[in-house]
Amino acid sequence: MKKPSVATSAVVTAAVAGVVACMTAASGQTDGAAAPNGVKIPPGYRDWRLISVAHEEGSLNDLRAILGTEVAINASREGQRPYPDGTIIARLAWSYDPLAESEKAFGHLQSYVAGPPKNGVQFMVKDSQKYASTGGWGFAQFDDGKPADEAMQNACFPCHQAAKARDFVFNRYSP
Amino acid sequence: MKKPSVATSAVVTAAVAGVVACMTAASGQTDGAAAPNGVKIPPGYRDWRLISVAHEEGSLNDLRAILGTEVAINASREGQRPYPDGTIIARLAWSYDPLAESEKAFGHLQSYVAGPPKNGVQFMVKDSQKYASTGGWGFAQFDDGKPADEAMQNACFPCHQAAKARDFVFNRYSP
Repeated sequence: MKKPSVATSAVVTAAVAGVVACMTAASGQTDGAAAPNGVKIPPGYRDWRLISVAHEEGSLNDLRAILGTEVAINASREGQRPYPDGTIIARLAWSYDPLAESEKAFGHLQSYVAGPPKNGVQFMVKDSQKYASTGGWGFAQFDDGKPADEAMQNACFPCHQAAKARDFVFNRYSP
Repeated sequence: MKKPSVATSAVVTAAVAGVVACMTAASGQTDGAAAPNGVKIPPGYRDWRLISVAHEEGSLNDLRAILGTEVAINASREGQRPYPDGTIIARLAWSYDPLAESEKAFGHLQSYVAGPPKNGVQFMVKDSQKYASTGGWGFAQFDDGKPADEAMQNACFPCHQAAKARDFVFNRYSP
């Protein structure tokens, strides 16, 4: 049998690379650094749809939005517990800032809006086999695109135990 | 020429109806009651993407999310002012409620989450010709799917004058 030419080999290599890239993207993982448990920042998470919103007082002092993949949105909205493998939930947060025009609009300050990003971005990735030791979820936080320190990463699951009855997820879908 | 049969006429009628329905959906307007200025609840608005979040204290006492169409998201993110015709921005809001598990998670109550829907849903629809008298925007509020009373509808633009420098839009895109 004739050996494949260099050109053919190049085409095959490129095709394989394309498939790998496609599979990587489909798995929702970027090429940035991973958290110790392997979770990476999912590409395009900022364009996911909204599950809910929240405000943290105290030292966090932020306004936050919970976004989710298609699987996450559907499970959240339909109350499916436990969440199915493949669910990814993102927690974005921003500085809790007064709205400059609030006094002019209402006669007094009462409006608070999202300022610059704050407190990193957090993800919960459901894989009941891979993350069995942490309730089936891979928890990870990223600050400025890099995994947060180990102490922060290890703090996620113990805190989320408080929501164990709801598959470790604090948020609820807001219609 | 032979007259069309009843069957043919029925097919034609159905086809026309289908086109009208398609055009109606494409225009972003549902079949529900319209506000006095003609704005209707755009279909599928809950599935639009997130522009920003906010908290209103005072009598409103809610957590809110600003969602937008593709055109709105792009203009918001890129700082395009004035917003282009066709922009639609939605303001959803929910009751500002303490999170039951907050004390267990943090040792004290500090987390506030979205409870039931509250304060209706509001839309801003950009059409600089049609809504020239209100800054180019059609403002409308709907409570439980029905247009809010006239006093409420008329209150939108005067309040939004406080954001005139930003094409009457208070929110900013949150990255």
